[in-house]
Amino acid sequence: MSDFKRLKLNLIKPVPSDYEISRNQKPKHISEVAKESGILEDEIEPYGAYKGKVKLDVIDRLHQRKNGKYILVTGITPTPLGEGKSTTTVGLAQAIGASFGKKAFANVRQPSMGPTFGVKGGAAGGGFSQVIPMDEFNMHITGDIHAVGMANNLLAAALDTRMFHENTQGDKALWKRLCPEKKDGSRDIPIGLLPRVAKLGLDTKDPKEWTDEEVSKFVRLDVDPATITWRRVVDLNDRSLRGIVINNAPTEKGQTRDTGFDITVASEVMAILALCTSLKDMRERLGKMVVASSKSGEPITCEDLGCAGALTAIMKDAIKPNIMQTLEGTPVFVHAGPFANISIGASSVLADKMALKLAGTEPGISAEEEKEQAGYVITEAGFDFTMGGERFLNIKCRSSGLAPDVIIIVATVRALKVHGGGAEVKAGAPLPLEYRTENVEMLRLGCANLAKHISNAKQYGVDVIVAINRMSSDTDAEHDVIREASLAAGATDAIVSNHWEEGGQGAHALAEGVIKCAHKEYPSQSQESNFKFLYGTEGSSIEEKIEAIAKEMYGAGEVEFLPAAQEKIKEYTSQGFSNLPICIAKTQYSFSHDAKLKGVPTGFKFPIRDIKASIGAGYLYALADNIQTIPGLATKCGFMNVEVNGDGEIEGLF
Amino acid sequence: MSDFKRLKLNLIKPVPSDYEISRNQKPKHISEVAKESGILEDEIEPYGAYKGKVKLDVIDRLHQRKNGKYILVTGITPTPLGEGKSTTTVGLAQAIGASFGKKAFANVRQPSMGPTFGVKGGAAGGGFSQVIPMDEFNMHITGDIHAVGMANNLLAAALDTRMFHENTQGDKALWKRLCPEKKDGSRDIPIGLLPRVAKLGLDTKDPKEWTDEEVSKFVRLDVDPATITWRRVVDLNDRSLRGIVINNAPTEKGQTRDTGFDITVASEVMAILALCTSLKDMRERLGKMVVASSKSGEPITCEDLGCAGALTAIMKDAIKPNIMQTLEGTPVFVHAGPFANISIGASSVLADKMALKLAGTEPGISAEEEKEQAGYVITEAGFDFTMGGERFLNIKCRSSGLAPDVIIIVATVRALKVHGGGAEVKAGAPLPLEYRTENVEMLRLGCANLAKHISNAKQYGVDVIVAINRMSSDTDAEHDVIREASLAAGATDAIVSNHWEEGGQGAHALAEGVIKCAHKEYPSQSQESNFKFLYGTEGSSIEEKIEAIAKEMYGAGEVEFLPAAQEKIKEYTSQGFSNLPICIAKTQYSFSHDAKLKGVPTGFKFPIRDIKASIGAGYLYALADNIQTIPGLATKCGFMNVEVNGDGEIEGLF
Repeated sequence: MSDFKRLKLNLIKPVPSDYEISRNQKPKHISEVAKESGILEDEIEPYGAYKGKVKLDVIDRLHQRKNGKYILVTGITPTPLGEGKSTTTVGLAQAIGASFGKKAFANVRQPSMGPTFGVKGGAAGGGFSQVIPMDEFNMHITGDIHAVGMANNLLAAALDTRMFHENTQGDKALWKRLCPEKKDGSRDIPIGLLPRVAKLGLDTKDPKEWTDEEVSKFVRLDVDPATITWRRVVDLNDRSLRGIVINNAPTEKGQTRDTGFDITVASEVMAILALCTSLKDMRERLGKMVVASSKSGEPITCEDLGCAGALTAIMKDAIKPNIMQTLEGTPVFVHAGPFANISIGASSVLADKMALKLAGTEPGISAEEEKEQAGYVITEAGFDFTMGGERFLNIKCRSSGLAPDVIIIVATVRALKVHGGGAEVKAGAPLPLEYRTENVEMLRLGCANLAKHISNAKQYGVDVIVAINRMSSDTDAEHDVIREASLAAGATDAIVSNHWEEGGQGAHALAEGVIKCAHKEYPSQSQESNFKFLYGTEGSSIEEKIEAIAKEMYGAGEVEFLPAAQEKIKEYTSQGFSNLPICIAKTQYSFSHDAKLKGVPTGFKFPIRDIKASIGAGYLYALADNIQTIPGLATKCGFMNVEVNGDGEIEGLF
Repeated sequence: MSDFKRLKLNLIKPVPSDYEISRNQKPKHISEVAKESGILEDEIEPYGAYKGKVKLDVIDRLHQRKNGKYILVTGITPTPLGEGKSTTTVGLAQAIGASFGKKAFANVRQPSMGPTFGVKGGAAGGGFSQVIPMDEFNMHITGDIHAVGMANNLLAAALDTRMFHENTQGDKALWKRLCPEKKDGSRDIPIGLLPRVAKLGLDTKDPKEWTDEEVSKFVRLDVDPATITWRRVVDLNDRSLRGIVINNAPTEKGQTRDTGFDITVASEVMAILALCTSLKDMRERLGKMVVASSKSGEPITCEDLGCAGALTAIMKDAIKPNIMQTLEGTPVFVHAGPFANISIGASSVLADKMALKLAGTEPGISAEEEKEQAGYVITEAGFDFTMGGERFLNIKCRSSGLAPDVIIIVATVRALKVHGGGAEVKAGAPLPLEYRTENVEMLRLGCANLAKHISNAKQYGVDVIVAINRMSSDTDAEHDVIREASLAAGATDAIVSNHWEEGGQGAHALAEGVIKCAHKEYPSQSQESNFKFLYGTEGSSIEEKIEAIAKEMYGAGEVEFLPAAQEKIKEYTSQGFSNLPICIAKTQYSFSHDAKLKGVPTGFKFPIRDIKASIGAGYLYALADNIQTIPGLATKCGFMNVEVNGDGEIEGLF
């Protein structure tokens, strides 16, 4: 990047708080970042000085380019403190972009305000490897999560209101209202209901021509309340909304119903934002979302409710990827934010495609020129490889047609000691002794967790680099243990990285390894591309796909399908939805469904309690054991640390 | 405005749909609009090409200026179709700004997506008097309503979670968690809880010094669940959430509680956004919000929950007014969006102050120069004068210290005929005959409604201009009737305006009248400023203030305080909250609490069913009769008309 202006780091030890580091760096104007990234002036829409939306036109304009290198950052089974995956993503981008002077994009998810004000804090990376300004990153950015919430909840309101009206009105009254009379006496079909009219094979010109039976078919979705899977969402950790009874006011005439809220980032609309490939594709996916079944067993969709156009209108700006920058001024795409435990855990296909083209090379150049000119897109999958990474490969890559060139697995001495039998690590409490002093034996035992993630990743035919995210209490002997275990498990390399303390220069060795690996220059690497999915979607049953993930990835001995799940399998199979990939919601703190099982549990019985159909997103969503789809707040919460100072700056986000 | 670039109108008859008109006009870049308005380059933050946020610095920079003229637009008791108040606000700004070449700002509220996707449709004005781009105006703008919703709901989650934890933990466990141990063994008080520590008079340095009793006082808010007034919000018409039971999942251990959602624009946080005068003021108001009482009768505030800093962080960008433009390129501030039936119904004090300075004049000029140079801020109050206008004067003006120079009351032949005994007017249904043909008698009867609004407005000592918003079926004879009734009731003038069909030029006469009135050039005008409030806040009881509004403004014979209201009056009086102004939530379709009572009902018994304390916003909130604080969706809804076309443009918003 010849015109790239690097923001110089002013490294300080001990490392100050994230928000102090962020505040002390003056970012470039976002239009400058965009220009340096190859985005044209009319393709960027600034939102304030440091954030912008990028039009999808970029992808078309650069379609002839060969993609840049696609680097997937994943991790080991984490502690509640996180093991620095986002920090590594950003640090690596700073190293490749600012130190090596190559094009490098960090592609990350928009953080949810649930964890931001709960326990976890910000998600912009940390220390000297951050997205800045970190307070803007951790608040609304350009409002995409809010748009997702509105779209999700409009559909919920439409569904419940429709049921209310169907229960309180006769066919003719519903028909008169749904197809209002025009001045000339004819009747109008609202544009949003035309797809349903077409699906039912009715006359689209004149509702007055419909028979009584046809009128009834049109006006009655006849939802079976027991089958409703669509829940409302809020982007907060509000445990009180997990289970609620609605329609409890007198105006709703006793039509109470049990339901609940999920966190917004678990919404199917969020998954669609992450997986869609164009505005048209998003529109179609939103229309296909299934909210319930009718009493006769037919799926009821967003399109049936006449909502899909409105949802698309709400989401029409959210579909444009957001651009920000790292602490060293390299570009960052922040787009979509599905959680990796209760959703697919990946940033958007569109941001990745856009970045891969911007980092790409023109056709017709030599291999050497290509190596010289190729840029890097470092994209993150949430939680550990076996959760976020598995979904990235089996769901996101299946949807995008892309495959990563390198998989990075981020490991820390701390988390591996947990897997070697160390005491529980809690947010907000001082670390037990074993995490503050050398303990090679405990660490060696814990490396089994890392080894399992490496071998899981290798199953997809992609080479693995282990990034050892250095912490101040680590020793060289401990790093040697991790390195040895990584190579023994089949990693191409394992490299210590100190980007939290030193920014991009701390990730210099890691960047070198990643570049080398992306160009297949390690002697151990095959020159072939061997990418493959874990399972095929066609021709295998829902059970078989879930079993493939649970047994081959998680190490389960068997899968137990609880009654609700069995019923759903029958229902979805009969509705023709069995050919979809699977997203399993489960705890992020173990390979298994049980957060207490550290290391590499095997042979356990893996319980699937329910399955939902995310037909718009394009997968079935299986809920393991007692996984919650909206977190709660702790007694002492992140929000209690937050204040806005006299200069209007946010303090206390970490 | 010498550098002002007027956007030319391409008038078409019949008038096309609002979104077609909007789409066919190419707006100026928002930085150009800002520059023409006297906003400096570093004071504007563009959000995309056509929206921006303006920093509050503008107000300080121009503090020496004398304010421009302050024009309040209100209306008669409306029909569900609306009588064109926003359209008149925008049309008048187009006339004064684009035709007369004076500085003119239209200050409007951000629309809620509830009505946008419900019955009402967009709120950008209409026809050739609109805020553009109307689709961006009607969607998220810069996300302020979403920020309000997040702030409101974070507080709700904090409250319910705190109650849950207090019910499931002992004092010591709560204390250990709320004041976590640091590495050195000492204990930390989170910054958000320091105000409560100070309020209780505890040692702020070392929580270990507290006695058991002090610990208990600190950790137990001891909320009385029956007194909780804080509800969650969503920016949609979702009637199913009016009454809900929360904490109904097994993880919440049977701690179920009855509550419900309001629409976001009814949130006290939204009222604070509208009424606050600085970031510091907003921070203090958010902290003062009362959510419930303790079992011993003390008010529990947002500050007690340790939430006020976090809420301020969420709202820190929302506090900056948004700038957009009219169809003729004049500036529009869009800021805050409280409804006028269930909240205060006014856009923000900060936007008004900013516009008044931008439209203002430098000190030390002659009266003649001042008249020549003075600009106009046309600000709107929701629904009719007696709802939105009354709150504007008694609440917003009391808070801002400003007073309007002119009050406009928008009237239509259509709505006045309703008050004269015409058949019910419904959205989406053809209009009955009396509204499509001349009917002078019915109109004359209905003018009593207008006359009552005029005389109500005159009580505040401000001159009134009636704007007759012309519709195509009106006749000259009908306009004469309205004009005559207006002057008889004390209006300074009554002027027909045709801005919907003709843009600013259609409001030429109205603009002339308003300018003349603002400079007190009508012979009938007093040269004195006689502005006064309806009631004093100090020294009168809550009942007396409510009675003043109900009897003198609404025409009630008596006020009936139902038991819940009586209890609240006792509670709030004992808590020292009786010296606040009153915001009465009631139907917008009648002077009374009963939507069916058209015209000028008198002598009715006005029921107050409940009262809530909006201490942060600075008023008591009285709920009349069965007013709903979240609307419902109709069988056939606005969302059914909305689609996004192949060019990514929204269609079907009207």
